[in-house]
Amino acid sequence: MQVKNNLDNNSLMVNESLLSTSNGYFGVRGNFEEGYRNDYDTIRGTYINGFYETTDITYGEGAFGYPNTSQKIVNVIDGQTIKIYIDGELFNLFDGKVIDFKRKLDIEKGYSLRYIEWISKKGHHLKITIKRLASFTTLELFIIDYEVESVNYSGEIQIESTLNADVKNYSNKSDQRVASGHTKLLHVDKIDKNHGIATISSKTKISNLTIASSMNHNLNMEYTVKENSIIGMVKKNIKASEKISLIKYISFTDSIRHDDCFKESKNVVNVAMKNGEKYYFKDQEEYLNEFWKYSKINIDGEIEEEKAINYNIYQLLSSIGKVKNTNISAKGLSGEGYEGHYFWDTEIYMVPFFTLTNPQLAKRLLKFRYETLESAKIEAEKLGHKKGVKIPWRTISGSECSAYFLSGSAQYHINADVAYSYIQYYLATNDTEFLKEFGLEVLYKTALLWLDVGYFNNEGKFSIDAVTGPDEYTVMVNNNYYTNSLAKYHLKWVCKLSSILEKENISDWNRLKSKIAINENELTNMKNASEKMILLYSDELKINLQDDAFLKRKEWDLENTSEENYPLLLHYHPLYIYRYKVSKQADTILAHFLLDNETDIIMKNSYSYYEKITTHDSSLSPCIFSIMASRIKKIDKAYHYYKMTSKLDIENIKGNTKDGLHIANAGGVYMTIVYGFSGLRIKENGIHLSPIKPKEWTSYTFRINYKNSLVKVTISDKINIETEKEISLIIDKTKYLISGKRSLNYNNF
Amino acid sequence: MQVKNNLDNNSLMVNESLLSTSNGYFGVRGNFEEGYRNDYDTIRGTYINGFYETTDITYGEGAFGYPNTSQKIVNVIDGQTIKIYIDGELFNLFDGKVIDFKRKLDIEKGYSLRYIEWISKKGHHLKITIKRLASFTTLELFIIDYEVESVNYSGEIQIESTLNADVKNYSNKSDQRVASGHTKLLHVDKIDKNHGIATISSKTKISNLTIASSMNHNLNMEYTVKENSIIGMVKKNIKASEKISLIKYISFTDSIRHDDCFKESKNVVNVAMKNGEKYYFKDQEEYLNEFWKYSKINIDGEIEEEKAINYNIYQLLSSIGKVKNTNISAKGLSGEGYEGHYFWDTEIYMVPFFTLTNPQLAKRLLKFRYETLESAKIEAEKLGHKKGVKIPWRTISGSECSAYFLSGSAQYHINADVAYSYIQYYLATNDTEFLKEFGLEVLYKTALLWLDVGYFNNEGKFSIDAVTGPDEYTVMVNNNYYTNSLAKYHLKWVCKLSSILEKENISDWNRLKSKIAINENELTNMKNASEKMILLYSDELKINLQDDAFLKRKEWDLENTSEENYPLLLHYHPLYIYRYKVSKQADTILAHFLLDNETDIIMKNSYSYYEKITTHDSSLSPCIFSIMASRIKKIDKAYHYYKMTSKLDIENIKGNTKDGLHIANAGGVYMTIVYGFSGLRIKENGIHLSPIKPKEWTSYTFRINYKNSLVKVTISDKINIETEKEISLIIDKTKYLISGKRSLNYNNF
Repeated sequence: MQVKNNLDNNSLMVNESLLSTSNGYFGVRGNFEEGYRNDYDTIRGTYINGFYETTDITYGEGAFGYPNTSQKIVNVIDGQTIKIYIDGELFNLFDGKVIDFKRKLDIEKGYSLRYIEWISKKGHHLKITIKRLASFTTLELFIIDYEVESVNYSGEIQIESTLNADVKNYSNKSDQRVASGHTKLLHVDKIDKNHGIATISSKTKISNLTIASSMNHNLNMEYTVKENSIIGMVKKNIKASEKISLIKYISFTDSIRHDDCFKESKNVVNVAMKNGEKYYFKDQEEYLNEFWKYSKINIDGEIEEEKAINYNIYQLLSSIGKVKNTNISAKGLSGEGYEGHYFWDTEIYMVPFFTLTNPQLAKRLLKFRYETLESAKIEAEKLGHKKGVKIPWRTISGSECSAYFLSGSAQYHINADVAYSYIQYYLATNDTEFLKEFGLEVLYKTALLWLDVGYFNNEGKFSIDAVTGPDEYTVMVNNNYYTNSLAKYHLKWVCKLSSILEKENISDWNRLKSKIAINENELTNMKNASEKMILLYSDELKINLQDDAFLKRKEWDLENTSEENYPLLLHYHPLYIYRYKVSKQADTILAHFLLDNETDIIMKNSYSYYEKITTHDSSLSPCIFSIMASRIKKIDKAYHYYKMTSKLDIENIKGNTKDGLHIANAGGVYMTIVYGFSGLRIKENGIHLSPIKPKEWTSYTFRINYKNSLVKVTISDKINIETEKEISLIIDKTKYLISGKRSLNYNNF
Repeated sequence: MQVKNNLDNNSLMVNESLLSTSNGYFGVRGNFEEGYRNDYDTIRGTYINGFYETTDITYGEGAFGYPNTSQKIVNVIDGQTIKIYIDGELFNLFDGKVIDFKRKLDIEKGYSLRYIEWISKKGHHLKITIKRLASFTTLELFIIDYEVESVNYSGEIQIESTLNADVKNYSNKSDQRVASGHTKLLHVDKIDKNHGIATISSKTKISNLTIASSMNHNLNMEYTVKENSIIGMVKKNIKASEKISLIKYISFTDSIRHDDCFKESKNVVNVAMKNGEKYYFKDQEEYLNEFWKYSKINIDGEIEEEKAINYNIYQLLSSIGKVKNTNISAKGLSGEGYEGHYFWDTEIYMVPFFTLTNPQLAKRLLKFRYETLESAKIEAEKLGHKKGVKIPWRTISGSECSAYFLSGSAQYHINADVAYSYIQYYLATNDTEFLKEFGLEVLYKTALLWLDVGYFNNEGKFSIDAVTGPDEYTVMVNNNYYTNSLAKYHLKWVCKLSSILEKENISDWNRLKSKIAINENELTNMKNASEKMILLYSDELKINLQDDAFLKRKEWDLENTSEENYPLLLHYHPLYIYRYKVSKQADTILAHFLLDNETDIIMKNSYSYYEKITTHDSSLSPCIFSIMASRIKKIDKAYHYYKMTSKLDIENIKGNTKDGLHIANAGGVYMTIVYGFSGLRIKENGIHLSPIKPKEWTSYTFRINYKNSLVKVTISDKINIETEKEISLIIDKTKYLISGKRSLNYNNF
């Protein structure tokens, strides 16, 4: 992926996100090693997944049960800085003359590249090539391969390389969303430059976490401690046509995952120095070969789209936490937006990709909710519940960090979203071991909450009141269709899986029952609640209703709402928005996609109805509209909404890519192809397909890992399948058993 | 009113509120002149009505249109301190021996009294009598009459009297509601002790207001400036059986209402010194004679209740602002609770007393909303409205100060509450001049908002969605019965009054129309909206429904909710409470009281229904339940709820009287008698009565000022009326024209 390459401040900040190098454990934004011009703004950032500081929440008017603290991802020690001086002049893109300048992210080889051909004011001509690698195989390791080639200069070149712990989180006085305090989160604990390796550790004050970072170089450098940083310096002579190559090894180790992070940080760099950089670049490529084997999407007909799609997929891999207590934050590790919090985005928008291509990584995401069950129990109690757990709406460590309950804690659907992702994982993998060890406990305890939130009304129907669905433009509603239908599914599957496990091995089941404290009466209650769940439907419109008051609300004249008034939430009081029949994002139709639980005609009508009143002010929306347009065979619409997703960050469509990439949308891009165009669903009886194909493409191909079998699907004018093991495939209700390669005619496009 | 007189910290703090001396312009809490013991907590406070500092509001998660600033009543310069030293010992109640100790508020003479008989550790025996007067006739003047009588001591007595500007607002670290910052709000500007008078002025930083205060004494004192205070000192010789009398004159003048407040502050004290204290004590008594002529309530049968009722009435007089830009804050001038803000309490709970007894003062309250229309216009715009004004939920200067819109800005009913109070004023006074000058503009502009908030739904009914009614335990509901029924009344009366004024004088009307910019189409819309207003009714229960989802909500098991879990809002997350069919306070039945718009059977059923689910966690609730119990002739219930109101502060029933008196409840006490027991309503065709009488009372008497006629009503086994002018009286639908005295038999108790 090559990016647009302007040197204006805004483009540079967007590229900091787009060209960040992350491996899921840490992420480094794509800042220039030498920095920008002084008058430029920059978010010079390095983040560790799950590494946070605790911050206070203050309320104008607080109330019982509100969270008093939040968490914020910390901008940790900065290892990016490298400065070179030629004949006394600092190399930088804002002085002298830039002859050539390219930047790209190589998603096959797993590094970012910056190439500059440059003539200094004094006329010295250089070619500089910088590669950055965040190792997928040694998660603590960051490498900068910095090569200087002299075209016409002979003389001394001075190289300075810094490890800087004098760091702050980003704030911007002119933007009130990031203007607030909470910027200086790290405080230097130890600095050490003995034995030719530079190491600093820093601590957070309240969460009491430590991050350590070491650096060393292939060139012999002299290290000097200067306040809170260590600067390495070396002078070399260079001649015309000669190259000098600096390899900078930087490690990041944190106290959550490392016993003695200071020592381990040194160790990572020492080992890396011994192995040399080529070892890691090769490893990286091999790791990615294996990754792409299951993950690559090919588009025949629009090469730019293929690039964009796989760029987004690569960002999913770069964002996913691979060690304990990590997940995927809304912006991955590419920025500080949403303070590094994890949301339902994970389960509904990101897990699907991993479940279908890389179940091992999917398990990591799923386990996070298991690891944080204790906090979820506390949150349920704060919300007044006598049983069950409540998954926090936004969190890093597991405790609720939402300071606005109407579109935070009130989104109870997150309990069912988490459950949904466990169930989908089970369907794609058949992994009952995981169920027994982790899954069922999460499923059961999250399901218990429904019994306490909802109730059987006078007519014996199960009602869930005063919750907020995915659409944040109507809040605290009764019987939100999305929530109820997912809760119904959730409750049904807890019963179903219990019975599967019981049948599998009764004594195992009894042990499990007692471990989780599963109560038979509660299972019966769950069954009843699921069966009696209210799913709102309008006889008149033949659509499912978003909530019990939705139809009655005032109409918002979207056609005559001017462009600059979007997103509505930045231009209208919430109370005003809540009064209208207007949706921020897919809600009912998201349920239709996930559950495939209504007739075609209802889904079609619902799609048309909600499309008219949805602003897509959330980046979580267009991908779902694309998928459901595919589902109801509106190919042009499907392609239209797909187009809104694939380049959402690449073209900075939301205007805030500088704060980090929209990783849920990245997952959405994948889903528009696989769930959308191809119509894939994993159900109990096998893989379902019901493809369409955009007329712009001659064919498209994706792979999945289905029950340990690599399955390759190509949709052209036919459906071509390649599978390692025999699979059951249902195409528009016709069932096939397929082994090896098979080409099927298909006339239903 | 004599009060309980313990020297424990809690009782003292409660008495600070109960024995505060206020005149509506300023209020001084009933602190001891000499202070308490060092380990005691105290809210030593003096407040000026409408004198505030602007404070920041911070939100955990803000949104468009939220207020960024609030306002807070300022604890101003303290003039209370007087210390006397006998033989080197400071007189105080925590050393030596207290022989006798009484405190009371004399509501006929208008001062508070503290009497102590005390023997010092050294055995010196004194009698001390302290009277405090906040003058109703010279609003800026506060007098302390401090008399020391020696029983057995002969020797020197040293008197110190202080004017202290080193003041802060109250905070208490163990109570998070008052723990926050915003305590040091005043900064000394000028100090002057020339010409034998002590004067200090202080400023607020952000609202940029100045308060000046002067003091002087009948005794010649030497004044010393010490940091931010001026201390007067004098030594006198006293003999056994002799008295020394210190008269301390203190003035308060603020820059909102005074051109040169520093100078005017001196002036007030200089004039007072010339007149002498007796002049003001006499004036005070005369002022109160006139006041009680219209306001006194007599109870034959329970003298303590008579005292309690008239104590509450006196607090209404003490709290009401009598100059421009003032109103009545929720706690009057007796404490800092609710930060000195004005709420709907004024119009619905306090205006009625003034309208019925003192229309001149009622006009002051009504005019406040006129004076702040510009801010109300801005607030409407922030809430997204293209027309109309939105009365702020809580304010001092007129701008919205609510930091929690769900039970703040969302309470749109305040627009109709204000309108209601104007209409009631008109009915009781026939004052069309006031309507033309102020009233109609407020009525029309507040009514316009309904047309923008509500809408005609598909069935042509007028619907008002996403607002909060008086009951703050269900928020942001659709078609709240209270809101809709008051809006209906509001809209109807705008049309009606327009037509009355048009008929009265067409050219005046045209001038007025153009001044207010009244649009004929909007009047037609108002008429339609009023006629088509949705008023929810359950055929099954034969009650009015609080909102369109109310009946469907979960039941809260109030019977098994333990005492310590009340008020619910301090023990449950709001979201939990909102999910239940539980009311904080009277809502639907408040509308029934105000509008008398439903059949007896509906009102009866509604009363029974809502009584079961109401917690009365708001002090605004029991009085309304008492009134409606009277309305449906449940005498025992009426008396039961009346009892919850009359001593609510006197017996500190809510536990927070230390933070100030519940002035809306004080208005409620009056209403339980006049609207409740006697069943009085002022309608277009005259005064309606439908009395009941508690069996504990042999008779009760009240007076009103009806169209400039003093009308005295006594309910015993008969109805006795005395009126200055002929009035039209309707008793249970039978109409009488009454002049002079008349005794009517009545068998319907």
